[in-house]
Amino acid sequence: MIGIFGANGFIGTHLTRRLALAGASVRAVSRRFDESFVEEFNGKVELIQADLRRPIETAPALYGLHTVVQLISTSTPALMNEHILADLEENVLPHVEFIQNCLRADVKRYVFLSSGGTIYGPNADIPTPETHPTNPINSHGLTKLVVEKYIQMHGHVDGLGYLILRLANPFGRGQRFRKGQGLVAAVLEQYRKRLPVQIYGDGSARRDYIYIDDVIDAIVAALGLDGAPRLIVNIGSGTTKTVVEVIDAIEEATGYHFERQHLPARETDVAISRLDISKARDLLGWKPRTPFSQGIANTVAALDPQAPGR
Amino acid sequence: MIGIFGANGFIGTHLTRRLALAGASVRAVSRRFDESFVEEFNGKVELIQADLRRPIETAPALYGLHTVVQLISTSTPALMNEHILADLEENVLPHVEFIQNCLRADVKRYVFLSSGGTIYGPNADIPTPETHPTNPINSHGLTKLVVEKYIQMHGHVDGLGYLILRLANPFGRGQRFRKGQGLVAAVLEQYRKRLPVQIYGDGSARRDYIYIDDVIDAIVAALGLDGAPRLIVNIGSGTTKTVVEVIDAIEEATGYHFERQHLPARETDVAISRLDISKARDLLGWKPRTPFSQGIANTVAALDPQAPGR
Repeated sequence: MIGIFGANGFIGTHLTRRLALAGASVRAVSRRFDESFVEEFNGKVELIQADLRRPIETAPALYGLHTVVQLISTSTPALMNEHILADLEENVLPHVEFIQNCLRADVKRYVFLSSGGTIYGPNADIPTPETHPTNPINSHGLTKLVVEKYIQMHGHVDGLGYLILRLANPFGRGQRFRKGQGLVAAVLEQYRKRLPVQIYGDGSARRDYIYIDDVIDAIVAALGLDGAPRLIVNIGSGTTKTVVEVIDAIEEATGYHFERQHLPARETDVAISRLDISKARDLLGWKPRTPFSQGIANTVAALDPQAPGR
Repeated sequence: MIGIFGANGFIGTHLTRRLALAGASVRAVSRRFDESFVEEFNGKVELIQADLRRPIETAPALYGLHTVVQLISTSTPALMNEHILADLEENVLPHVEFIQNCLRADVKRYVFLSSGGTIYGPNADIPTPETHPTNPINSHGLTKLVVEKYIQMHGHVDGLGYLILRLANPFGRGQRFRKGQGLVAAVLEQYRKRLPVQIYGDGSARRDYIYIDDVIDAIVAALGLDGAPRLIVNIGSGTTKTVVEVIDAIEEATGYHFERQHLPARETDVAISRLDISKARDLLGWKPRTPFSQGIANTVAALDPQAPGR
């Protein structure tokens, strides 16, 4: 049985749907479930309500699982010192305890979604391979790195299999808008509200955006590997788009014309981020198949103008 | 003024002595001070009693410091899961808070003694350069790595200068014996008690042992760098000794003959660890100057047969 922790989130909902459709045996765990989630999956997958930041709540949900997919994401790329300490205390600590609970429950394989966009840090080689040094400069990337290192140690010492997927910037239908996370979701939120978009600097910062269906393909390919290998793999689109290109694409898909407000550049924005995805291609037999414009068109088509925040 | 946190320990005592003799302005901070420490340094350096694991206690001791040397070492290379979590909670968390308190107190430079012997992990290139991937497989090395990453982030984001010294296995007079830390101290403890030595496997495991005077030279050289550079530097002897060679050297220095008990090899022992020290040579103008046999002879000569545990 596969346990999806954080099943009610953006990636979790898509993954639960894909695995349920494929007839896999799935246990969906989340702090709370949306009504729509329960409606869609009740009777098809096991639903367990537990707070992922409280290991004592999630521990019983680990028994009987062969594979755990950990999708919890509670930290934001904020840079305030208070957040740095709270991220470590409230996200990393319970996560390490959670991993150790997995070992006690005899889980064989741990799938963790890490951050390909922040874990390597500034001035990385482009495209960035998995072997590149990891020197994150924000708390989001740093907490992901720390969790990776604990997973690797338990892999080496306790034989835990792991698949660490260092994900570029995912986007697609169902992505919630939260400040500081996801340019596509943020611009779509402005479209929904018919508000101007704000561009830091000249909008030439390039990022690697990957459509949700391709992300799910990659996770499913990783789950299909035999045994319990220990792998770290980049998952990205192989290409980049600038901030301006993202806005242009959304304008084209919606037919809406944004007012563009320019703000001073942020020092912490790296100029370009693009992942080397040859390892995923070679080891997972996976490659991204959705062109950016197609991903944007799908996402816009799925927008429900009645639903606030979608 | 230079603050030495963990001043009462093995390295701390030697560093305090060296800096005090050089006429430097020093504040020595420790959870508790030995009588001998107070006797030697009272009136020569500021003494402040504060628990380094309680940031609220050490925060006031940071004001007025240009440089902080952090020598606290509370974790052992144990492999039990309980320790892993406790190390993270009780050592790493307060350390990150301590670093942030340094920023608030306008400390310019942070000197951290990391672990060259455990931070790179198994199967490292020999000799191991600072650019080598870091995949520690015990909690000691992992907590050092996590602290390094937080120091680097605050260096990048907040401009904190830092000198991270990845130290090989230090030994010398005054080193306390604690189980699991320091082969030389452990063998000398057996000599003091006239007990057999225990050897895991065939005793061919090679480590990089560095004499305390050379360690202090390196720290002093690092402190002498202009400005607040951001550096990670290996500090080692440039050579290795096997377990058997260490025991042989102590037999030669003491004239005592050990009974040698052989135990099964431990899976977590790497076969060889040797640091590439060319960066320290180039950037600090430092090199080790004490041959191993000389370091052992000095250490044995300083043994006080009356003092328990020395």
